[in-house]
Amino acid sequence: MGELASMFAPDRVAVIGASEQQGSVGRAITENLQADFDGDVVPVNPNADRVLGIDCVDDITAVAEPVDVAVVVVPASIAIEMVEGCGEAGIENVVVITAGFSEAGSEGAARERRLKEVAAEYDLDLVGPNSLGVMSTGVGMNATFGPENAQPGNISFMSQSGAFVTAVLDWANDRDVGFKDVVSLGNKAVLDERDFIDEWGSDPDTDVILGYLEGIDDGEGFIRTAREVTQETPILLVKSGRTEAGASAAASHTGTMAGSEEAYEAGLEQAGVVRVETVQELFDFAGILSGQPLPEDESVAIVSNAGGPGVMTTDAVGDSGLELASFTEETLTTLGDALPGGANIYNPVDVIGDADVERFERAIDAALADPNVGAAIVLACPTATLGFDELAETVVDLQDEHRTPVAVSLMGGDSTRDAQALLSEVGIPTYFDPARAVRSLDVLSQYREIREREYEEPKRFDVDRERAREILLEAKHSDTNRLGVEAMGLLEAYGIPIPDGEIVDSPGDARAAAERILDETDAADEDSDGEAASGEVVMKIVSPDILHKSDIGGVEVGVPLSEVEDTYEDLVTRARNYQSDAKILGVQVQETLDLDAATETIVGMNRDPQFGPLLLFGLGGIFVEVLEDTTVRVAPVSDPEARAMIDDIDSAPLLRGARGREPVDEDGIVETIQRLSQLVTDFPAILELDINPLVATPDGVSAVDVRLTIDQEEL
Amino acid sequence: MGELASMFAPDRVAVIGASEQQGSVGRAITENLQADFDGDVVPVNPNADRVLGIDCVDDITAVAEPVDVAVVVVPASIAIEMVEGCGEAGIENVVVITAGFSEAGSEGAARERRLKEVAAEYDLDLVGPNSLGVMSTGVGMNATFGPENAQPGNISFMSQSGAFVTAVLDWANDRDVGFKDVVSLGNKAVLDERDFIDEWGSDPDTDVILGYLEGIDDGEGFIRTAREVTQETPILLVKSGRTEAGASAAASHTGTMAGSEEAYEAGLEQAGVVRVETVQELFDFAGILSGQPLPEDESVAIVSNAGGPGVMTTDAVGDSGLELASFTEETLTTLGDALPGGANIYNPVDVIGDADVERFERAIDAALADPNVGAAIVLACPTATLGFDELAETVVDLQDEHRTPVAVSLMGGDSTRDAQALLSEVGIPTYFDPARAVRSLDVLSQYREIREREYEEPKRFDVDRERAREILLEAKHSDTNRLGVEAMGLLEAYGIPIPDGEIVDSPGDARAAAERILDETDAADEDSDGEAASGEVVMKIVSPDILHKSDIGGVEVGVPLSEVEDTYEDLVTRARNYQSDAKILGVQVQETLDLDAATETIVGMNRDPQFGPLLLFGLGGIFVEVLEDTTVRVAPVSDPEARAMIDDIDSAPLLRGARGREPVDEDGIVETIQRLSQLVTDFPAILELDINPLVATPDGVSAVDVRLTIDQEEL
Repeated sequence: MGELASMFAPDRVAVIGASEQQGSVGRAITENLQADFDGDVVPVNPNADRVLGIDCVDDITAVAEPVDVAVVVVPASIAIEMVEGCGEAGIENVVVITAGFSEAGSEGAARERRLKEVAAEYDLDLVGPNSLGVMSTGVGMNATFGPENAQPGNISFMSQSGAFVTAVLDWANDRDVGFKDVVSLGNKAVLDERDFIDEWGSDPDTDVILGYLEGIDDGEGFIRTAREVTQETPILLVKSGRTEAGASAAASHTGTMAGSEEAYEAGLEQAGVVRVETVQELFDFAGILSGQPLPEDESVAIVSNAGGPGVMTTDAVGDSGLELASFTEETLTTLGDALPGGANIYNPVDVIGDADVERFERAIDAALADPNVGAAIVLACPTATLGFDELAETVVDLQDEHRTPVAVSLMGGDSTRDAQALLSEVGIPTYFDPARAVRSLDVLSQYREIREREYEEPKRFDVDRERAREILLEAKHSDTNRLGVEAMGLLEAYGIPIPDGEIVDSPGDARAAAERILDETDAADEDSDGEAASGEVVMKIVSPDILHKSDIGGVEVGVPLSEVEDTYEDLVTRARNYQSDAKILGVQVQETLDLDAATETIVGMNRDPQFGPLLLFGLGGIFVEVLEDTTVRVAPVSDPEARAMIDDIDSAPLLRGARGREPVDEDGIVETIQRLSQLVTDFPAILELDINPLVATPDGVSAVDVRLTIDQEEL
Repeated sequence: MGELASMFAPDRVAVIGASEQQGSVGRAITENLQADFDGDVVPVNPNADRVLGIDCVDDITAVAEPVDVAVVVVPASIAIEMVEGCGEAGIENVVVITAGFSEAGSEGAARERRLKEVAAEYDLDLVGPNSLGVMSTGVGMNATFGPENAQPGNISFMSQSGAFVTAVLDWANDRDVGFKDVVSLGNKAVLDERDFIDEWGSDPDTDVILGYLEGIDDGEGFIRTAREVTQETPILLVKSGRTEAGASAAASHTGTMAGSEEAYEAGLEQAGVVRVETVQELFDFAGILSGQPLPEDESVAIVSNAGGPGVMTTDAVGDSGLELASFTEETLTTLGDALPGGANIYNPVDVIGDADVERFERAIDAALADPNVGAAIVLACPTATLGFDELAETVVDLQDEHRTPVAVSLMGGDSTRDAQALLSEVGIPTYFDPARAVRSLDVLSQYREIREREYEEPKRFDVDRERAREILLEAKHSDTNRLGVEAMGLLEAYGIPIPDGEIVDSPGDARAAAERILDETDAADEDSDGEAASGEVVMKIVSPDILHKSDIGGVEVGVPLSEVEDTYEDLVTRARNYQSDAKILGVQVQETLDLDAATETIVGMNRDPQFGPLLLFGLGGIFVEVLEDTTVRVAPVSDPEARAMIDDIDSAPLLRGARGREPVDEDGIVETIQRLSQLVTDFPAILELDINPLVATPDGVSAVDVRLTIDQEEL
């Protein structure tokens, strides 16, 4: 059990602000607790002797026996004082129902800051403020002011919206869906989603964790905790504010500062969390995850008594990450013996419309016994020859015997009621719509993959961190926030290959640099394939004030040695013409890369308010700008995560030999992503950084240009 | 009313093969008819005097009074004889329940062919064979052998799967969803989906048409009929076999030959049909289409008593084709007056958790009165202050007053039951999950767009059809199925621009051709911008046996006049080396196009077994081969349809001036698509045709290469 165990299994709960007043929150909570709580309820109210028949205490510090959880429902003006009292009384767990904190203007925000200080002072585990409360069915505790108590079950559920808790409980009770713990997170001043997934991850009575969140405060920490938890316990999350409209609605609702949707998408995936979008999915998936074993692979068998619905189910499999199982010869023989002519023994199996339960049974048994079958869907339409109840009993027995996950689609109305109940009793989910059965099995299979993940530690390369720091400090000294090619040394310090080049500040030095570069390229070429070097260099203006060098004629390629000095003058003149007071650091003279077999890629980073450094990869030019074919990951990334970024993009085949090209050095790209990951993790001062292009050739990669923004305060 | 009106409103129905035998189909149908049918049931069976208390007739031709519908349930061996009898007796409508036709091997297929002949001979409107039967609630007719009769309603439903009919009826009866007519299509030997949409389109009692189809037999005809019908009556279709796995399951189930999924997708869209994937969607959408008026635009207001669920709903709007309405100042003032501080008067409106029905009412009223609001979602979570029933009454009144479409999400279980019933009574749909409310309103808005469509007739260009025919006949005479550049004349005849060029068969002629081409290009250049012509031509080998000319060195670009003769010899030698017996038609000498500002596109066609000629458009090279960024339409296409093909592709910005390029001549592309559409519609003998590339420049387009396959039989 985790650190919050005593919050969910208290012996004694105090209600600070308990009241008999009709319609008051203090009364609702006291009543809800009285209704089912196994332990003692202690009303605290200086203006009453008894509340709802229980002796009242004037002050929380005056309670004789130890209180495990204090629920605070007093007005905002005195709430902090009460919480302090809890601290004084040595109470660890405090649930602040009271509203009027950060959700309510600047005065409220100041109050919430003070609340946090008090919580820190006394090391309180504090839920809320502005919470509906908490529940734990293990001890019958309903410390909320909602209209419904939860039924017992093995799902624990947290929600950043109190109304969503009320709605879900009303709905779930109607469908006999039970919970272990329920938490309304409120403003998350102290305890947040991470604390609860940590707690529930070590709770043997919680099989599935569900959450409704509008934001995650500490993305990186969440990923770390969730990765550990999801090795044992699946986490399903609705993260709302996904769309632009939704995000701005969320911001006005809870004041949650929107991180980018792509950061959430990447971060939650990296965390091993299954993201869902609707309430129905939330409970469809929770149901199958808590009721069925995990499949061994993604293959699925369909056994149906109706061809058309069998085709619809097969379509749903085609849409999913699952695939149709191929039966063994043995299974086909068994099915051939068991089924009449006209039946289909191949997957999807069609036992045809006149099948009775016995024929269905033989087919399901054969499918579940097949080693090539990871999971099965039993699909039945109403017919004169089939009893749904009897079919349900058969499925229960067969599932129990084979221990293969099963989902059932009973395509009828009233006539399926009892069969549904029978199946759900043992954790086999049923649906009218077979597509829901497929999606649920798909999530079961997804979670199998998550559990099998081995998260590698990000590689730490041997880099020259000190030199990188010096380059950044230099920028600070010259009071610059934006750096360009003059910061190529930063990449070099972190072992990212860059073309040979130098920044010079006179025509003569430019010529000398070009001579040296061409000499060395010549020598290298003779060493390797003896091809003639181009005898030309690339020259670029270097100025923090000129962001788009090409646009102002600030880049010249193919400059022969004889023209280097003139080109130097030209570049500087163009820069001056463009902006007379532009700060010009010089001109970069760079070797010419053979771009014939090269592909331009982009490796970049920006910082997300919740998830921190977000790495981006894509192909350059139109692929990023027009097709937006890019992918992101939260840094730091491991080798497999960096490698998966290449798989993610649609244009990946262009790196891999499409249309007769020679494949580029993919390992070089993967290593560059990881080295950049290390750089931006080491230096929080780097706010944004783009290597554009990172030229990838069959022989390696080379960072041709770089641009970054830094936060001087962080240096 | 349509031609099939008498099938759905008969006075007298005969059951040929009526029987008292327990468990027989003949008994089930007779019983089902007896149960509710307003008219007379006439059992036909030579071996019985009475069936279930009704006098029996020996032979259908012996029935005294006119029979409107005959249902045939005799064994397959005598079914055709019985159908002939119906024809003799002058019966127009025949429903063949009997199985054992095309779904059952070659013998069955032969029987079905014979059945079709008989139907044609007597001009029968024949449903089936292998059908569950037909229903029409207007006259209480249940001429099926299924276990359930439909409840009355305004939805008509056809299904290619009998089991799906049974399943849907069981489910629908449980939810009080009613139908006007229900048809199990069976093998569609005579009547098919097109006949029924045509019938229901003119049936005043059918408000929505639903269908489950595994295939459409005559795609082009279906499009024509559906376009007309959907101007008045929405059509919702599940077309199964969408995925590869599903299509092969469908083929083994019904023997439906799979057309390509992309043809169905394009064809159904062009037909104005709304395609759905799940049963829940089918009825969610049918419910709102039959119960609510159409919105005036895609703007939607959300009024909720809970922030979190309001955000989820807003996300769903963001995912849809709808958008959040912007309220007028007047509405904001009204809301500001009506709602307490802490409420949100902007869309999504939050009346907050302590709202009673009166406050909700003021907010909903203000939203529905706003001219900027096309539709509204009322979203309510259970609270102590809100009565769902009272809220439902209020919504019914307000919707009736404003006539704006409304969908309601009541986020609770049992407590919402009565409110749901009240709302559904007047056609206002309710859902727990607000995302379903949004998707339903989205379909309502989609259908509004479909109704507003004005289908333009495809333009008929003035073309040289005779010359095109000659070119194709020439190919036939030389016994060739595959044509290449030698068929450029085909494009020219249909007014598609091609570069200046000719096919020659000697080095001398090649030189003469090159001289002429260069002379004319020079002259043209001097006429226009005076730029120097390149002085070079392109040369390509012309052979039906060499498909990939470039791969064998069969294409030379930038050939100066002096090298034309040698190049001719080289090209022929390479072709001979590649394949000594290759048929060589000559060498094409072509003008050089300035490709600097050009973009290569592809315009192509292949024939789909159901939908006929399918036009394809995309950008050339990697865009088609790696990114698969293409779009298709069923030909013939009108100008707006051809234009929409460009909008469809992700890489369209590259044609429209992305990254500082000059926009290409989009009209030229659009016209080429339409001219190709006309060509392939005029000549069914053209099986496949690719213009690759169609080079698009700011000044026009040019078909540089062409490849086609023809069917000589069709010429």
